[in-house]
Amino acid sequence: MTSISPDRRGFDSALDPSAEQIRDMVAHAVDWVAAYHDSVRDLPIAPRTSAAGLKDLLAEPLPVEGRDFADLLRVFREVVVPGTRHNGHPRFFGYVSAPGTAVAAVADLLASTLNANLTAWRSAPAPAELEHVVIDWIKEALGCDPGAGGLLTSGGSMANFTALAAARHRHCGDTVATHGMAAHPAPLRVYASTETHHSIHKAAALLGIGRTNVREIQVDAHFRMDVDALVRTIEEDRIAGAEPFCVVANAGTVVTGAVDPLADIAAVARGYGLWMHVDACYGGFARLAPSTRPLFDGLSEADSIALDPHKWLYLPADCGCLIYRDPEAARPAFSLDADYTRVMQTEPAEAFAFWDYGPDLSRRFRALKVWMTLAHAGSRAVGDAIESNIDCARHLAELIDGSDDFELLAPVELSIFCFRYLPPSAQAGSRSQTDEEQLDRLNERIMAVLQQGGSSYLSNATINGRFALRGCVLNYRTTRHDMQILLDDVRRAAEQVAEETHP
Amino acid sequence: MTSISPDRRGFDSALDPSAEQIRDMVAHAVDWVAAYHDSVRDLPIAPRTSAAGLKDLLAEPLPVEGRDFADLLRVFREVVVPGTRHNGHPRFFGYVSAPGTAVAAVADLLASTLNANLTAWRSAPAPAELEHVVIDWIKEALGCDPGAGGLLTSGGSMANFTALAAARHRHCGDTVATHGMAAHPAPLRVYASTETHHSIHKAAALLGIGRTNVREIQVDAHFRMDVDALVRTIEEDRIAGAEPFCVVANAGTVVTGAVDPLADIAAVARGYGLWMHVDACYGGFARLAPSTRPLFDGLSEADSIALDPHKWLYLPADCGCLIYRDPEAARPAFSLDADYTRVMQTEPAEAFAFWDYGPDLSRRFRALKVWMTLAHAGSRAVGDAIESNIDCARHLAELIDGSDDFELLAPVELSIFCFRYLPPSAQAGSRSQTDEEQLDRLNERIMAVLQQGGSSYLSNATINGRFALRGCVLNYRTTRHDMQILLDDVRRAAEQVAEETHP
Repeated sequence: MTSISPDRRGFDSALDPSAEQIRDMVAHAVDWVAAYHDSVRDLPIAPRTSAAGLKDLLAEPLPVEGRDFADLLRVFREVVVPGTRHNGHPRFFGYVSAPGTAVAAVADLLASTLNANLTAWRSAPAPAELEHVVIDWIKEALGCDPGAGGLLTSGGSMANFTALAAARHRHCGDTVATHGMAAHPAPLRVYASTETHHSIHKAAALLGIGRTNVREIQVDAHFRMDVDALVRTIEEDRIAGAEPFCVVANAGTVVTGAVDPLADIAAVARGYGLWMHVDACYGGFARLAPSTRPLFDGLSEADSIALDPHKWLYLPADCGCLIYRDPEAARPAFSLDADYTRVMQTEPAEAFAFWDYGPDLSRRFRALKVWMTLAHAGSRAVGDAIESNIDCARHLAELIDGSDDFELLAPVELSIFCFRYLPPSAQAGSRSQTDEEQLDRLNERIMAVLQQGGSSYLSNATINGRFALRGCVLNYRTTRHDMQILLDDVRRAAEQVAEETHP
Repeated sequence: MTSISPDRRGFDSALDPSAEQIRDMVAHAVDWVAAYHDSVRDLPIAPRTSAAGLKDLLAEPLPVEGRDFADLLRVFREVVVPGTRHNGHPRFFGYVSAPGTAVAAVADLLASTLNANLTAWRSAPAPAELEHVVIDWIKEALGCDPGAGGLLTSGGSMANFTALAAARHRHCGDTVATHGMAAHPAPLRVYASTETHHSIHKAAALLGIGRTNVREIQVDAHFRMDVDALVRTIEEDRIAGAEPFCVVANAGTVVTGAVDPLADIAAVARGYGLWMHVDACYGGFARLAPSTRPLFDGLSEADSIALDPHKWLYLPADCGCLIYRDPEAARPAFSLDADYTRVMQTEPAEAFAFWDYGPDLSRRFRALKVWMTLAHAGSRAVGDAIESNIDCARHLAELIDGSDDFELLAPVELSIFCFRYLPPSAQAGSRSQTDEEQLDRLNERIMAVLQQGGSSYLSNATINGRFALRGCVLNYRTTRHDMQILLDDVRRAAEQVAEETHP
């Protein structure tokens, strides 16, 4: 390869570097990339830092003159990396967080270089086809019908929002899109269990449906929607003159990982003519794990399914996904008409526009990292990794069941576990309300000490009113051994809290 | 660096490769990255391909077994790259499309490796601080007040949507968020010029406001909003019982690049208590170019400004941005309350959550590529590149003015130009309606032939009812010489069309 002669260069070399300069930047970057993957297991998970300290190191006025990439990479390595939480650490169990894969990061380098914009087929034919391919792969992983279709999104919140927008449009027709919700005076009702992710309520607020029109349905002892209660609530609403239009089922709730009885909910949705949406952002890909596959019976009957490949496909953020059982039912909610969106192709596959199926116009080439990760690993290895994550959570539950100083607070359904530490005084006999509140405070303090310690990281949840240490195994690096280390780390944190309290 | 011994590995090497394997993947990838930057000037801009042909090459069932990265990179190089449009080519003038910078692509490799999730400060302290830094830089570039704040978004459509949601919430209070738009029966009204991007109408439809409640205000000969007409329409609506709540001004319309009279519109917004939103997605960063800076007087008075760093900061998709003059006015429209979003820090800067200011929860580390591009190039070089793009558009206008066979259809305000080819028969005398329609068809055919030719690429627009060849210079690689080549390419396309018609 020859480098470009100066007279062919449009502009400044920082904006338009030579091939040699690009090779040099990437060579320095890959030193860090490889070292990071090599060392992430040994880093303290959470940084000890402060907003004021970071501002001192990072804030400056907009620089007039540029500076070397090497200097920027130094700031990245010395300030940014030590100043963040390491979501790829095998004992980062907080929230629902994936490590990312190396091949996906390389795919992002390629995607940002090519800079395809997946507004429509005509703007990026091969990248658009590749998005169709990975959507088909995801459909296959979920057991969806061949006629289903969909698109990648910025994340699960946007996928849930988009699904609710499509559901409303099917119910209301174009009246609401044209004249607003004021033209549809009867209140619309969405049904979802008490365990549903807040993004559903946020979507209802943004869409003008209103948060209180998300009716919360009680759950059983496994935190799964009570389908009889769903039916009762729908009937009550109909009698009161409200209009049920959508039921949201969970395939992996955010707190405990519960999968609602999808086939039963699908039957109710059919019976009442409701749009069935499944929030499978966390759990959906567990259909690839043999031991949990039966939980997803009925999933393919959903009108829409929200997923997060940036969760259990191990991809780096951002990559959400929305699957429609009948994409043409969703299209009128989003399609628009303007000169700059006028599509001149007559072949339907070439007239295809992603903007007809969601709110975005410009769209990054996210499909490349999905394709590269799935094609590089294969579905068997991904399924095995998911199964192994689930096995880790079950193993932890066994360790807890076999211990005196820990108590499980919810059943392990997929790879989420909720538990608490019990000091010797709480290990036998009944507990008063005061005892329970002390346990809440103790475990909250244990969580803070654990997070500061850097070896293991849990987040919090409330289970039946009690403070729970909550973890989610969502990392191909995590092993059974890590679960033992986690419990040892929690015990050490508990000792430290005990010493603080009674020094 | 030593590679990891097998017993430390959690899983399959395709999911969790060794440092050596990562170096190997990146080494192969960078060969293509460097070659692409070196050769993009010489590639045919648009592919000659078909959906059926690409499907044959790309579609396959979900692979059970994985395959080598080298094989995937081969498919990327041999099928995906030749099968897409090259937005980085210096004569790709379609739509509003940036080339991306090499340093931003490297930043995306780093960001996807670190995989920080910028939900809130606590989840990624240093990345969150870096997002604040780049938001401050963008504020400085726009001349915003120090108290302004904001966040990066997936794109301009989402930034416009988010701004309208905030505007509605300020007007309606929590009633609509809680009970839905049905609880606010008087129709809400948004005002925007006829030249406004369709994402505003789409946002109004999704929010339950309704597309027809976006009142379209007429424009002057420069396609700028007629402020007297704005005032008249607001008055009419108030008398009719509607509730004006928001005015959307354009800083760079999508068709001709017009910048509305921002200071005048700000005065009207103040007078009527309206939220003023500016869609500056295309044009906002032209405030960095000395010759167009005065157009942006009044911008800092806006309540919100939507921007696309993936347009005129030359970044790869996706990177939109939303700036709020008073972030606390926007917060109640988005903030949510759940255990998994419970923030335990008490220091305000450490309790900061991005989810309080927009619809998303998980958020990619987009700030890194903004920071690296601006810090590597410096604002002077970026401003010079923008000025050079504007100069190219003005130069084209001069070439057209000095020619007999081209006609400019709209004034050049920033870097967009709209023109058409005139065959000898149309170069003199008055034209009938039939003549005009023939010119429309001729220029539409010229555009298709030009796009197929691969040397220059224009998209289409309708200007005062007539078909226009439309281009936008948004690439640091583009020079005055490219503008001459463009006109020569259009002439060649016209000759080809003439030969087709009269062989």
